Amino acid sequence: MRVPFFDADPMGVVHHANYLRYFENARIEWFRRRGLTWAIFTGSDLSVAVVESQVFYRSPARFDDLLLLDVTLVELQRLSMKFSYAAHEQSEGRLIVEATTLHACVGSNMKLKKIPASIREALLVPEQAGQREPNG
Amino acid sequence: MRVPFFDADPMGVVHHANYLRYFENARIEWFRRRGLTWAIFTGSDLSVAVVESQVFYRSPARFDDLLLLDVTLVELQRLSMKFSYAAHEQSEGRLIVEATTLHACVGSNMKLKKIPASIREALLVPEQAGQREPNG
Amino acid sequence: MRVPFFDADPMGVVHHANYLRYFENARIEWFRRRGLTWAIFTGSDLSVAVVESQVFYRSPARFDDLLLLDVTLVELQRLSMKFSYAAHEQSEGRLIVEATTLHACVGSNMKLKKIPASIREALLVPEQAGQREPNG
Amino acid sequence: MRVPFFDADPMGVVHHANYLRYFENARIEWFRRRGLTWAIFTGSDLSVAVVESQVFYRSPARFDDLLLLDVTLVELQRLSMKFSYAAHEQSEGRLIVEATTLHACVGSNMKLKKIPASIREALLVPEQAGQREPNG
Repeated sequence: MRVPFFDADPMGVVHHANYLRYFENARIEWFRRRGLTWAIFTGSDLSVAVVESQVFYRSPARFDDLLLLDVTLVELQRLSMKFSYAAHEQSEGRLIVEATTLHACVGSNMKLKKIPASIREALLVPEQAGQREPNG
Repeated sequence: MRVPFFDADPMGVVHHANYLRYFENARIEWFRRRGLTWAIFTGSDLSVAVVESQVFYRSPARFDDLLLLDVTLVELQRLSMKFSYAAHEQSEGRLIVEATTLHACVGSNMKLKKIPASIREALLVPEQAGQREPNG
Repeated sequence: MRVPFFDADPMGVVHHANYLRYFENARIEWFRRRGLTWAIFTGSDLSVAVVESQVFYRSPARFDDLLLLDVTLVELQRLSMKFSYAAHEQSEGRLIVEATTLHACVGSNMKLKKIPASIREALLVPEQAGQREPNG
Repeated sequence: MRVPFFDADPMGVVHHANYLRYFENARIEWFRRRGLTWAIFTGSDLSVAVVESQVFYRSPARFDDLLLLDVTLVELQRLSMKFSYAAHEQSEGRLIVEATTLHACVGSNMKLKKIPASIREALLVPEQAGQREPNG
């Protein structure tokens, strides 16, 4: 992804709150490549909530930088899943940010729910070649 | 309102797309003072959609500036309503932005609906003293 | 571009203030394909300010929609330039938003400046094939 | 603060990335009450960078909720300072989010710098009554 102008602050660097947005986009794309889209939740009493996030800001990114975002599923429990992320600046390979997010399945009443087997299986299938989308 | 750090861009001035957000906050507050909150739409097949917006950027605002936002209902038709806005910088009174937005009532199918009489009446009642909220 | 989750509001549709951001990204990309990047302004007492914007919201876009953004330079004056935009939803070709923005060159004192000849020439050169970037 | 419409996502709850923005606003206000504004950095080769953030999302907030934000300086080292935060929903007192952020002073070359004595002293002075601003 290319850093948008409006995400850089008066110091000229990406405002720190934006990285959780970049990583969400990357995570949604990661889900999509495993066949898991927003549509599977429509009509179900289930959604995936963010429970915790931790971000380490290693070096600044600037407007117009190209960032490479990596997503890894690092833990899959009965009730939760944890992802780790890294963002690198493309031209020099410089590490920009590392992060983790912890997620839980919840019902519309915000009570915890067991992660359904169908989702669990999809999460564990390795990404297939050719599923990468043009702007992914 | 005070301009947040994250709304200023690398040129040090408020990014232009933010003013539509500021004016929406001001408009929602304007509605609230007339007893019209989000709750009145809950469960109804009705919402208010933005149809058109026009913004004139007169001079730049910067991080930490205090802005005064004015909202005026300038037109109330059977199917639409139009608001105008002005943002001034508080300390010098400098005009920052002027704008208008046009709104229509729509059903969940996004078809136009007549503005209900109850809403129409509330819109035309003058704002009452003492309804201003602390951070309004 | 794919609509991010965080750009959709509680009505499930893209919040109207986001389109000015999408169009800015598209305009910056349009400039880049003509060799005009942020770097040309660095160290110069010159920047391009948004003077006016007008947006017509034709139909709603939703989270995960793919949007195609078109940018056209419609006017190039001595002191200003005007762009028009359209956003279409990719799968059905539905028109989502149309817009125009008016821009002026300003110095660091925010006074108007003539658009430099070098920029004017670059603006009028047609886009070249093969300059499209992977995620453009 | 009142939760803006545009900060709520299609699930109707505040998008998790927004809390780092709310806490930044609260922290800047916390600094201001101790006489530390952006102006003290202007012209100096010094700024305060976010090094790490951790957020625990305890329960969802919704559009139009009033949130109370607490800021506490929990650690002041030679090179870094750590703040903790809590956001509560006002009407029920429900805990929404807890967080910490770690900050360091850096020069324009992004190298670490010792926190200047003048800033260190201001940080340790207790907040004075009557300094609260109207919309703070």
